[in-house]
Amino acid sequence: MAHQVGIVGASGYGGVELLRLADAHPAVDVAVIAAHAQAGQQVSALFPNLPGPRTFDAIDVDQLAGLDLVFLATPHAPALELGSALARRGTPVVDLSAAFRLPAEGFARWYGEEHPEPTLAPASDGTHGGERAAYGLPEHTRATVRGARLVANPGCYPTAALVGLVPLAPLLQPGSVVIDAKSGTSGAGRGAADSLHFSHVHGDLVAYGAPGHRHTGEIEHWLSVLGGRDLGPVSFTPHLVPMARGLLATSYAALAPGVSADDVRTALDEAYADEPFVAVLPPGTFPHTKALAGSNGVQVSAVVDERTGRVLVTAAEDNLGKGAAGQAVQNANILLGLDETTGLTAIGMYP
Amino acid sequence: MAHQVGIVGASGYGGVELLRLADAHPAVDVAVIAAHAQAGQQVSALFPNLPGPRTFDAIDVDQLAGLDLVFLATPHAPALELGSALARRGTPVVDLSAAFRLPAEGFARWYGEEHPEPTLAPASDGTHGGERAAYGLPEHTRATVRGARLVANPGCYPTAALVGLVPLAPLLQPGSVVIDAKSGTSGAGRGAADSLHFSHVHGDLVAYGAPGHRHTGEIEHWLSVLGGRDLGPVSFTPHLVPMARGLLATSYAALAPGVSADDVRTALDEAYADEPFVAVLPPGTFPHTKALAGSNGVQVSAVVDERTGRVLVTAAEDNLGKGAAGQAVQNANILLGLDETTGLTAIGMYP
Amino acid sequence: MAHQVGIVGASGYGGVELLRLADAHPAVDVAVIAAHAQAGQQVSALFPNLPGPRTFDAIDVDQLAGLDLVFLATPHAPALELGSALARRGTPVVDLSAAFRLPAEGFARWYGEEHPEPTLAPASDGTHGGERAAYGLPEHTRATVRGARLVANPGCYPTAALVGLVPLAPLLQPGSVVIDAKSGTSGAGRGAADSLHFSHVHGDLVAYGAPGHRHTGEIEHWLSVLGGRDLGPVSFTPHLVPMARGLLATSYAALAPGVSADDVRTALDEAYADEPFVAVLPPGTFPHTKALAGSNGVQVSAVVDERTGRVLVTAAEDNLGKGAAGQAVQNANILLGLDETTGLTAIGMYP
Amino acid sequence: MAHQVGIVGASGYGGVELLRLADAHPAVDVAVIAAHAQAGQQVSALFPNLPGPRTFDAIDVDQLAGLDLVFLATPHAPALELGSALARRGTPVVDLSAAFRLPAEGFARWYGEEHPEPTLAPASDGTHGGERAAYGLPEHTRATVRGARLVANPGCYPTAALVGLVPLAPLLQPGSVVIDAKSGTSGAGRGAADSLHFSHVHGDLVAYGAPGHRHTGEIEHWLSVLGGRDLGPVSFTPHLVPMARGLLATSYAALAPGVSADDVRTALDEAYADEPFVAVLPPGTFPHTKALAGSNGVQVSAVVDERTGRVLVTAAEDNLGKGAAGQAVQNANILLGLDETTGLTAIGMYP
Repeated sequence: MAHQVGIVGASGYGGVELLRLADAHPAVDVAVIAAHAQAGQQVSALFPNLPGPRTFDAIDVDQLAGLDLVFLATPHAPALELGSALARRGTPVVDLSAAFRLPAEGFARWYGEEHPEPTLAPASDGTHGGERAAYGLPEHTRATVRGARLVANPGCYPTAALVGLVPLAPLLQPGSVVIDAKSGTSGAGRGAADSLHFSHVHGDLVAYGAPGHRHTGEIEHWLSVLGGRDLGPVSFTPHLVPMARGLLATSYAALAPGVSADDVRTALDEAYADEPFVAVLPPGTFPHTKALAGSNGVQVSAVVDERTGRVLVTAAEDNLGKGAAGQAVQNANILLGLDETTGLTAIGMYP
Repeated sequence: MAHQVGIVGASGYGGVELLRLADAHPAVDVAVIAAHAQAGQQVSALFPNLPGPRTFDAIDVDQLAGLDLVFLATPHAPALELGSALARRGTPVVDLSAAFRLPAEGFARWYGEEHPEPTLAPASDGTHGGERAAYGLPEHTRATVRGARLVANPGCYPTAALVGLVPLAPLLQPGSVVIDAKSGTSGAGRGAADSLHFSHVHGDLVAYGAPGHRHTGEIEHWLSVLGGRDLGPVSFTPHLVPMARGLLATSYAALAPGVSADDVRTALDEAYADEPFVAVLPPGTFPHTKALAGSNGVQVSAVVDERTGRVLVTAAEDNLGKGAAGQAVQNANILLGLDETTGLTAIGMYP
Repeated sequence: MAHQVGIVGASGYGGVELLRLADAHPAVDVAVIAAHAQAGQQVSALFPNLPGPRTFDAIDVDQLAGLDLVFLATPHAPALELGSALARRGTPVVDLSAAFRLPAEGFARWYGEEHPEPTLAPASDGTHGGERAAYGLPEHTRATVRGARLVANPGCYPTAALVGLVPLAPLLQPGSVVIDAKSGTSGAGRGAADSLHFSHVHGDLVAYGAPGHRHTGEIEHWLSVLGGRDLGPVSFTPHLVPMARGLLATSYAALAPGVSADDVRTALDEAYADEPFVAVLPPGTFPHTKALAGSNGVQVSAVVDERTGRVLVTAAEDNLGKGAAGQAVQNANILLGLDETTGLTAIGMYP
Repeated sequence: MAHQVGIVGASGYGGVELLRLADAHPAVDVAVIAAHAQAGQQVSALFPNLPGPRTFDAIDVDQLAGLDLVFLATPHAPALELGSALARRGTPVVDLSAAFRLPAEGFARWYGEEHPEPTLAPASDGTHGGERAAYGLPEHTRATVRGARLVANPGCYPTAALVGLVPLAPLLQPGSVVIDAKSGTSGAGRGAADSLHFSHVHGDLVAYGAPGHRHTGEIEHWLSVLGGRDLGPVSFTPHLVPMARGLLATSYAALAPGVSADDVRTALDEAYADEPFVAVLPPGTFPHTKALAGSNGVQVSAVVDERTGRVLVTAAEDNLGKGAAGQAVQNANILLGLDETTGLTAIGMYP
């Protein structure tokens, strides 16, 4: 008997990817496809990969509370409200927004507003899970996710950055981390904007939002918590790349004295040897974003530059896969007691 | 117990897509991944979506003959030999090449060489299946496929053109069919060539191979056989479009006297009402190739132009999906007695 | 002393391309950069290739009337008004909109509104120029342009279609013309729209607006007038291609009895032997849109298909070049008494 | 009377861009188009933007020595030989290869071979020009270029990195520079390769060649020489971006104590206030590579991150423009005594 799940915010790219993944998932049925502004509209009018007469549902908290699990793919404002309400009623929630990723203090600082539910957010001392939202990066937090009701699905940039850097944190010099990240346009959402017009993006590359992009705070907090030490402020610059999907985080950090290339390699290998969704590439190869298209995989590579004393870490993912909907399904599988890989793959569509 | 299958020619794009689909297929195991020139090389060296140490196998006919089914994704020359050998030994074969798509006479004419196995090829009177290869367009030939051992998987362009035109054949004027088709670059294969260099294709659109592209003969033969009447020679022009995947066939034909827009609509609706992989779009909408990316779906639309008396039919697919590997899996499902949709989806990756 | 010109509608893609071309033109100065809704805004806010403090001017007819020439790159509604006013005051105008391309009857039929200035539009008997607007396809109408005050710059699709078909018109069978055309996204204008979002267009190909696209009427009228005979209704289908610039028209038509491949070749060669912006390609080669990027060139190729009795004509251009701003400068050069090639090139940016 | 110039290595992308620029240049005629392997072949067979019967010439040193100036767009091995020979005979040379960019010691280290002409290379103490090759970054070396016979045109990555960093060098902490750079595929040259196949690059982003890419040495040497101080080893990572043209260098460096955002801004403004090809963007905006397509412009932006104490510098160019052929023409203009901007523009093709 399949689990009945709901997708709220189904008119965005996270939502439509959840619909695609759920369709191929053998153990869930999508009972509700809710979208605020699009309620009543045909899904096919927005997403031609889903032809047919199905329409978006209105958002009905009582209906959602009766489901086995709810994915929230809305902006963080409605997610704060819905996530809190559903979590309090005991409905498992995987929230793809930023509503519950940061401690209340960090949320206030990076999002410019008070967190309305500080006791549901992670604590600033690093505690998360239980009554509080668990940070859903299963490779580093699956035990915590298992015991939670509310899971904060990581941001797309933080996922790639943290998968690459967390295992190396003990080997790095604080204050030295630079993360130069690049994403396809689907990371910027479905809203039509001059800056996302095909005529402008085609053949173009541009940085944006630096310094001060909100994902900076998320990366710093969880790199410290999951890496086991405070690595200080991080330089983070995102770029918009002329492709629809795919995200690459290129990270640089000074190695602590005495750390060798072997130490780096061993740390990554040990962290991910048994992880079905993370591949550590052989030295001298670099991950291709395209290799992960449509999948929940991450590919990571690290190389030490003896001249500069820095390690160079590159991590690639599909921003809508492991960076959003794929990881949300992975977290949902944990909450529902399913095998973590159910309905997911690490094999991208190539070419 | 999963069926043991082999993929020969696994180093090409049809092959790697078969690997991806087989990985997600619940009822097959890929026992052999064979490639002639790449035998012994790591799969990951060619296809970064498949990391890990697995290497390509050599081609061993005896080994292949012991499998439950073999996919041939080689050029037509080796497929002529392997397909004949395996079919004679009773091993079910789905051949993605052009080796067995045409009657021997048509093969000689369009491929410029004698067919070495004329009794295994379809007959020029339209007979196919049984001892002969069956033409594997399941929506129009599934009964024949079911009784065959050797299935000729249709070409990418013929699949889209035929899905759109076969149901309309009785309504059209002979000699009036024009098919203007467009494909992403993966249809041209994996070989590095000046004309496929990213720097040249990016921002470019070009026609090629017309008149006289080999798919012209395949379209003409099967449009007559499956459509039930001779529609005469067809104008067919393929184009290379700056995208990796996706194929669109835009077809024009004069309507026979008295045929109405309703007749056209009805013919398509009746042909595909129960087909899981074909969606007939509502009037006024056109299929997007991107909606089918990675899927086995086809989307079709037809509109009548009263001014010119012509019907305009557009049909979109993923050239590696329904145009190659997806349809090959669909045919394999039939041969293996599985539900035709096992391991396949009509929902493309979007955006 | 450079000619003082104005560009109205400078906030659209035709306008910004005129700005780029005018900057490189040795004999014109852009005195006015007017845009209705963007008056007062910085040009660089819309167009990052034009950094600096320059702002869009308001539209002031008296100011424009004092210039040596005005380019109108607005929608057709304001162009009807401005073009008429300026032409009556004797100011040379090159109008890139559809305001004056069709006779009043054709305009009413294809644009769904009465033409407010029927005596300034071309006449339905084919007369144009003089007091009426001249149709500005210089390779076929330069003498008429020379004697006009108001020039209707052809549409992007009609330019490519007509350059390919006009010289062949005497050789074709009426009622047999099919034009399958494909354009980059800049042809759809600068307005942000869901259908032009990079995430949707990347990897996508789709037909649109058929049958009944407005350029159909323009092609039919001028193919008859410039080709010297009525070729009847034309099937015309445009497609949106995932590239920013570039347009390809693939045309099919039945040859009249007795017409040979040599006749076709000769007709094209004779028409364009001395034309600096039209290259007729050798048999067996097809024009690449990318070869014309940023230029005013057109490349044409024709091949006869003996099996079907049809000629296949492909013509490529930059839709913003020969399809809009480039041809507008070419027409302006004629009106200003300059060499027709001043400030223009037929060499595209490649790769 | 136009200057007679030759282009050697005209079959590469640097060569074809030189042909395009030379065609639009009012003061040069291209007398020789030489290419080693392609001698005798039609130019149009490689470059469809240049239709017509013209063929590549063979390389004839005596003929080249008689010209007014020679552009070398070959690999560095033939350029070492040709550049030395022509310089010794007094023919002005602009060499687009790496043959003469580094002192002999640096060349040996980064290119793995002895420099055959150490007295023609720049000296390791920073001396260049005169008998030695001048490093041709005119915004910082135009006086030296003016007095030279042999000009080493900078690499594509070094140009963008140095334009952004040289004016800031006095404000930075040694050992802190990280340069994360991204280029379109034309930077990788015209050779067909699996990694440059459109099917692979479309939708893909990947790092390559780090650490140890040869441009690292060029950046370090000239950043020290032109910046006036040794900034130590630099981390440099190039990436391949799915676009044909365009290059972005994103640089990070720690500010020296007491340096303010105003100091940074002032340093850039003062360096480039009068430079026709460098635009310093207002705070809060970032350069778009597409804004420079086909031009010789560079756009630069700098922003200080108070949290990390680092400055973030982004610099965009067309890798074939200011990063290769455009800058070569700029250097040639200096050598020929022409205005530096002749035949060049800072306005890219947009969209």
